[in-house]
Amino acid sequence: MEKEKPLILLSNDDGVKAKGLNELIKALHGIGKIVVMAPDGPRSGASGSITSEYPVRYNKVREDEDLVVYKCTGTPVDCVKLALHEVVSRRPDLVIGGINHGDNSSVNVHYSGTMGVVIEGCLKGIPSIGYSLCNHSADADFSPLFPYVRRMAEEVLAHGLPQGVCLNVNFPDTPAYKGVRICRQTRGAWINEWERNRHPRGGEYFWLTGVFDNHEPEAEDSDHWALNHGYVAVTPTQIDVTAYGMMDELKGWNWNV
Amino acid sequence: MEKEKPLILLSNDDGVKAKGLNELIKALHGIGKIVVMAPDGPRSGASGSITSEYPVRYNKVREDEDLVVYKCTGTPVDCVKLALHEVVSRRPDLVIGGINHGDNSSVNVHYSGTMGVVIEGCLKGIPSIGYSLCNHSADADFSPLFPYVRRMAEEVLAHGLPQGVCLNVNFPDTPAYKGVRICRQTRGAWINEWERNRHPRGGEYFWLTGVFDNHEPEAEDSDHWALNHGYVAVTPTQIDVTAYGMMDELKGWNWNV
Repeated sequence: MEKEKPLILLSNDDGVKAKGLNELIKALHGIGKIVVMAPDGPRSGASGSITSEYPVRYNKVREDEDLVVYKCTGTPVDCVKLALHEVVSRRPDLVIGGINHGDNSSVNVHYSGTMGVVIEGCLKGIPSIGYSLCNHSADADFSPLFPYVRRMAEEVLAHGLPQGVCLNVNFPDTPAYKGVRICRQTRGAWINEWERNRHPRGGEYFWLTGVFDNHEPEAEDSDHWALNHGYVAVTPTQIDVTAYGMMDELKGWNWNV
Repeated sequence: MEKEKPLILLSNDDGVKAKGLNELIKALHGIGKIVVMAPDGPRSGASGSITSEYPVRYNKVREDEDLVVYKCTGTPVDCVKLALHEVVSRRPDLVIGGINHGDNSSVNVHYSGTMGVVIEGCLKGIPSIGYSLCNHSADADFSPLFPYVRRMAEEVLAHGLPQGVCLNVNFPDTPAYKGVRICRQTRGAWINEWERNRHPRGGEYFWLTGVFDNHEPEAEDSDHWALNHGYVAVTPTQIDVTAYGMMDELKGWNWNV
């Protein structure tokens, strides 16, 4: 009996029509059956958000050999939850978020809808990878990523990942890569985050923008350093966010009321 | 010269009119100057989401002695970012999210807009606490929390918190508490997450719902165990989500393309 092909669930936060998602489908061609459930429009910055106030709908938009694509009215995390509950015939072997148009290294992991997809896959016990390219443009060139995207998916399918660990993979916006580096999340923060404008009928409104302030630009083990120096950054990421190192100190505080 | 009062920034994900937020203001009365920037309506499940596709606006809705309240069209995280950039006269001494109507222990930290507020405060280097009550009802009784909410805020103002660590505090829905326990995040997942309905004009739609499946119900150091046994659960939470324990193994994988 032929071995069953791996089942791979894809989603993203740039929406079902985004180039990054459609390039991801091409990059993975032939390595398994692919199911896509992606938002029906842009959800950039959706993080791990879920839709609790409204109902969610989905419908099929494309079907080819070993490929079926659905679009969904919900968030990236809703897409993963709904695909797992409603459309897949069995538990996927791999969940992939991306390919995101834009950098999800460092603290961006907390805002990223792409990493929302990946963390949700991981919470469901499925090996999960997020791919992001440090280029926001709608027509960015994703072709240099293809062999890496495929190789990493094959490695994760072969080795699996420990429960509670997923991968956040970011690609620098350079024509050639110096290699792959295993990294930790860079310490830093966004600053100067709002651009103020005056509405023609009065009052002010604000666009979220900003500059990333790297608190440790010389840290060679950090993901931002890797990207700035032409390396593909692989940051293993965990869903247990307990600050274990703080537990003993807190036990000594005065909690009496 | 009199010592300056602490400046405390509050936000939530249930919206500016939610009882939990207004009870939080009462619980903190007198310990400092309070600035509130809260969403103009419910944003439950907003996680760390930010508004990138639309402009954001805010306006003042209330001003009393040592209290000013703004409402904002954005997400909980937008509220923190906008308050820090536009309305506070100096860096706050404390950021508080809540009091949330509903449990944010265990994996809920990844979906919670309340914890989005807290993680954002922490990313900005400010000691931050999230308070949540395990009761979803709009008119839940928050009064048993008051002495704990106040004590914990005073402790954090007195001790500070290490960079990159915030507190996720959950209160059981019981009339009296057995005490406070310092906990770790419970391993578990939501299951049976969608309720399907048929639209009167055709097609299906889905409501996000579900049941929490605790993977370690006997783990006495976990936050879910504490809540189920009548304790207030304090879970120290970190913004560095690197899976450090996985880095060496990944360095041995085949990344060649």
